This record gives sequence, structure tokens and C-alpha cells, in this order.
Amino acid sequence: MDEVRKLELKHQVLQANTDAADAFRGALARRGTFMTDIMGSPGAGKTTLLLGLFERLQGETAVIEADIESTVDSEKIKAAGVTAVQLETNGVCHVEMGMVEQAHAALAGRDFDWLFLENIGNLVCPAEFDTGAHCRVMLLSVPEGYDKVYKYPLMFSVCEALIVTKCDYLPLNPDFDMDALVERATLLNPDLRVFVTSARTGEGMDELAAWLKERRSAALA
Amino acid sequence: MDEVRKLELKHQVLQANTDAADAFRGALARRGTFMTDIMGSPGAGKTTLLLGLFERLQGETAVIEADIESTVDSEKIKAAGVTAVQLETNGVCHVEMGMVEQAHAALAGRDFDWLFLENIGNLVCPAEFDTGAHCRVMLLSVPEGYDKVYKYPLMFSVCEALIVTKCDYLPLNPDFDMDALVERATLLNPDLRVFVTSARTGEGMDELAAWLKERRSAALA
Repeated sequence: MDEVRKLELKHQVLQANTDAADAFRGALARRGTFMTDIMGSPGAGKTTLLLGLFERLQGETAVIEADIESTVDSEKIKAAGVTAVQLETNGVCHVEMGMVEQAHAALAGRDFDWLFLENIGNLVCPAEFDTGAHCRVMLLSVPEGYDKVYKYPLMFSVCEALIVTKCDYLPLNPDFDMDALVERATLLNPDLRVFVTSARTGEGMDELAAWLKERRSAALA
Repeated sequence: MDEVRKLELKHQVLQANTDAADAFRGALARRGTFMTDIMGSPGAGKTTLLLGLFERLQGETAVIEADIESTVDSEKIKAAGVTAVQLETNGVCHVEMGMVEQAHAALAGRDFDWLFLENIGNLVCPAEFDTGAHCRVMLLSVPEGYDKVYKYPLMFSVCEALIVTKCDYLPLNPDFDMDALVERATLLNPDLRVFVTSARTGEGMDELAAWLKERRSAALA
């Protein structure tokens, strides 16, 4: 297959995915559900952030837990008394609309105020695929290093919020240049909101929850 | 395109890649070059590990630095006085043989004792592609959490060594279950070597360098 034909095919696949995502997003909104897509590296703290948000958000919540394999994370979510659906991608490195629709169907018509998708731990591929969420956010943990903003620019460009996690590690990481991170990230994405959080200490979590509530109100208005 | 046809195409692409990798590996060995492919999440500490290895390995060394974008890492390698070639994948989430061959050509026929490929920060896609290396290793940093072994099993299966990095963080991560990690990883891959390291304190680095020297001698014998 030549390069031009490959690019055409990729464009068609992504366009079909975006069309399905738009339809799904509209249907969710009509049912009063606000969906957030949570992305970040393996170990950035996605599941732990969710556990910290549950107690700060009012309303019914469900989580679609996407993993290449295993049910480790969905078990943690269920243990917190929150509805979780496991989405195993069987080796696929990102989540597409077909997978989201299938996972959502497993919620059997129940309506939720909050729906979270915990995406595959990956700073690359998930950025390319619209998953039907109203809001996309990314996590960057302090131990990963601030320079990821130079290496994975697409992820920073497509998200509404950058959530810096594990900020209790900052004293151990004097090289973590928060100013350089924020400067570069807002250059890539001028409207980006930045939250500096620690699920351990609770820092920044109330602000994040308040912002999500605002975003929900705006999206469902 | 139906699913069967898609799988056939994927198989063909991977097979062509493996054939090219075998030829490349053989050609390197005949020139006395031992190549190691270093994989791991964003921020697992790949570049820092390399900087710690240079002083412990005798001989001429070169690094192919693969990144989606930016030259942050290759600049660090060059600052250490080591030859580095930047391989920008322009959005692609893994490294394939064509890219390796192109990067290697930029070394302009010079021979090296050690060639390292620092792969894209990603625990998923790079595991699927043979890059022509004699040895594949993966990093898992303590702050990422030990449960990654359940979620990204292919990476643990295809590597010869698991290098646990940032072990100076262990006191801060009492939940990091090293025994469970090693048990599961060696179930996936009975021959897996495990090194527990810290580039900061130097722990485990001499053992890792000694093992790489053994592997080089065996591969080039």
C-alpha cells in the first residue's frame, strides 16, 4: 500500500470515529450524563485520582476502565462502591468509539450524572481518538518529569486540562520545572487549565472537582 | 476491510519487519556491535539509566534516541560525550526497522561496540516490533507501581531483563510489592532477569553493566 493511500485510509477511520463520537456525546447529554476521558502514562495515578474525585462529586457515577489486560483497576473502583465496567482492549493501545459503545451498553440503560473513561496508560495513541467524552483531561505525574511536554505535544494539545499528579513528590524532584511545563503547555494549548494535585494529601482536588462541576453544567445546559 | 483481512495485513507487516530485523542484527554482529533496545513508560528513566551505564561499559558507544518529537534526550546524551542520533517518529507510537536503518545510516559507517536504542516511552506498541536489537530490556519505575505487570503483559514477555528503576523511591511507596511483581513477571517469562536499580544512588548499576557485557560476549561469540 503506498503512503498516500495509507493516509487516506487513516483519515477515513478517524473521521468515522469522530462522527460516531459526536452522536454518542449528544445522546449522553440528553440523558444528563457528562463524560470525562482521563488519559496519562502508565502509573500517572488515573485510578487514584478517580477514587479521590468520587467523594467530591455529587450524583451517580460510573467508570469505564480500559486496560490492555486485567481487571486490577475496575476492582479498585468497585471496592469504592462505584459502578465499573471493564473494557479489555486485548492488546490495542487506545480506545475507539466501538469499544466505548459496547462498554456503555453493559451499563444496561442506567443513567449516571458522571461517566468517566479511564483510558489506556499511554501518552501517544489515545490522543488521536475521540471517545465521545465531553471533556478530555490528561495526567502528568511529578516523577515522570516535566519534559514530557516536549515529547508528547499532541496529548497536551487535545486536552482541556492538565492535571499534575503526585505533587507531594516535588521536594524530591528539584529538577521538575513547573514554570517551563506550564509555559510550554499553554503555548501548545492556550486555553489549557492546569491543576496541581496530590491524591495523598488532597492538594488541588477540591479545585479540580469544582471545575468538573462547572464543565458539566456548561455542557448539559 | 473485514477483521480477517486486517489481521492478515498486520501479520504480513510484522513478518516483513522481523525479516529485516534478523538481517540487521546479523550485520551488526559481524561488525562487532551489540545492540540493546530500551523500552519503558514515559518518565521511567531510560535516558538517565543510559547516562549511568556509559561510565560502566568499556568501548565505543552510540545511542539512537527515538522520540515522537523534540531532541531533549539526544542533547543529554551528547552532553555526556556519547554519539547520539535523533529518530523523530512524527507521531508514530513505536519504532520499526525502516526507522532504525535510517538512523543507523546517519552513523556514517562508524563501528561501535555498544549501540542502544532508546525506544518511544510506551509500554504497549513497542513490544510488538523487533528493532534488530540483540537484547531487549524494559524499565519499570517504582513510582509507576508494580501492578503494571498485570496490565501490560506483552512487554514483560518479550524482554530479557526487567530493570526496576528509581528504587530510592521504595521507602515512599510501601505498596510497591516487589515479590508480587517478580513472581508474576517470571510466570510470564521464566528466563527474565530482574535488576533493581537507582541511577541516583548507583544501586544495581554495576550488576546491570556486568550482565550486559556477558550478553554482548555471548551474542558476538
